[in-house]
Amino acid sequence: MTDDERWLHTLPGEGERRLKLTIAYDGRPFRGWQSQADKSGIQDYIEAAFAKLCPEKKTLSLHASGRTDTGVHALGQVAHINVPAKRFTLRQWVLALNANLPPEIRILRCQWAQPRFHARYDAKGKIYRYRIWNGPVFPPLEIGRAWHIPKPLDLAALREAAAVLEGTHDFAGFAANRGVPCDETVRTVHRIGITGRPGGLVTLTFEGNGFLYRMVRLMTGALVRCAQGKAGPDWLRSLLEPGAKNRKKCQYAAPAEGLYLVRVIY
Amino acid sequence: MTDDERWLHTLPGEGERRLKLTIAYDGRPFRGWQSQADKSGIQDYIEAAFAKLCPEKKTLSLHASGRTDTGVHALGQVAHINVPAKRFTLRQWVLALNANLPPEIRILRCQWAQPRFHARYDAKGKIYRYRIWNGPVFPPLEIGRAWHIPKPLDLAALREAAAVLEGTHDFAGFAANRGVPCDETVRTVHRIGITGRPGGLVTLTFEGNGFLYRMVRLMTGALVRCAQGKAGPDWLRSLLEPGAKNRKKCQYAAPAEGLYLVRVIY
Repeated sequence: MTDDERWLHTLPGEGERRLKLTIAYDGRPFRGWQSQADKSGIQDYIEAAFAKLCPEKKTLSLHASGRTDTGVHALGQVAHINVPAKRFTLRQWVLALNANLPPEIRILRCQWAQPRFHARYDAKGKIYRYRIWNGPVFPPLEIGRAWHIPKPLDLAALREAAAVLEGTHDFAGFAANRGVPCDETVRTVHRIGITGRPGGLVTLTFEGNGFLYRMVRLMTGALVRCAQGKAGPDWLRSLLEPGAKNRKKCQYAAPAEGLYLVRVIY
Repeated sequence: MTDDERWLHTLPGEGERRLKLTIAYDGRPFRGWQSQADKSGIQDYIEAAFAKLCPEKKTLSLHASGRTDTGVHALGQVAHINVPAKRFTLRQWVLALNANLPPEIRILRCQWAQPRFHARYDAKGKIYRYRIWNGPVFPPLEIGRAWHIPKPLDLAALREAAAVLEGTHDFAGFAANRGVPCDETVRTVHRIGITGRPGGLVTLTFEGNGFLYRMVRLMTGALVRCAQGKAGPDWLRSLLEPGAKNRKKCQYAAPAEGLYLVRVIY
């Protein structure tokens, strides 16, 4: 199928319009974004809500800006879907969908999009946030929402390490292998912002033009090793070295529950 | 029993010392602070942890600064208990207790206290916070942590109303009747701080020398009615009028899950 055919295949049909959704979710109760055989993916719940509201439609497929793993949260995931043009107003879509979703998934906003708008292919960038509780005792209200690292991190080393990852690099060393060859692994990380202090919450904010599978968790895992004095900038640089054959891979992924998809930029 | 007898009754015995605990908890999984017949109170869990660590002690009673209801959270509850003086260091007490508690209850700090220190009777004041999500869609990560009020609140009216409650008043109208006569219902609310804005999080911070049973939730419920235009400062004043016989009672308690015991002041 050519690119054009793929587009035609999913374009809104007669009497349909393309709806753009901004979605928030708590990642814990679900098996990640992607549709699952047992219908426990976030995508499954939202497609089921659409199916209830558009019972005459045989296929309803929701396309997100990208998948998130089990436990990863979203403050502003974006997806699109084709819906009957005159079924509801935008405000009604928000209310009707939320009435048919578990409270851990909320449609924050609905907008009409151009027929060719694609949540994934049109994304110009994304912002992710990673939260670390860096103190001896893990606060109960941070359970499932942050990575607990009891011993103080060296924030100067963390910042120095983050500067190594910023910029345009081949990030294949920071991509989990899903058994799928990934030809194009060059990405630009515009900024890794670090706030907070040991003894409390340390937050890493990643802004980039795109992120490979598990890339933010692998970058966070690597940066934390540097902030723990277990590795240095040279090790990070070696993971960025081009060379598809004997590619060094980062083996340290930060846990899912500290990760938040904050925003998708179009 | 006279006051002196009550003190003697609970003073540390031979070879014992009084331990002061600072405790955080997520209120949702528990049946409130107070010990329950089915052992589902937060107090039950902490007493069970002490019983494991001091198996030779027949009675271990933990005294908190006050009870919190089911669903109410604590960032800094304080309690005291008598323990064997040489069992552990303070650091070891923190680790050993947390190792024997569910993650939703955490001992933040242990300190040695004077033998006559009493978590409840020595408290000079408390700080509570109440969180309201004041926007049309309730964010998934606020579930169980805030009160969802979809329609915009009038924050000027909220501030005007809060000013009525600040100061020294007979707060019997803002106390839930537990079937126990409460002779002394005069309290001083030093400050009700309001931050935030409609469309997002609105936070009320209550500082006072003490709070009656459900007083913060009843004050919050009353203030919100004013901020919704359903009542005014005169109604609030009428609830503060002294007069034990035909006492007007506030009937509007804000839900438990938005309430946080932030700090106890000694």
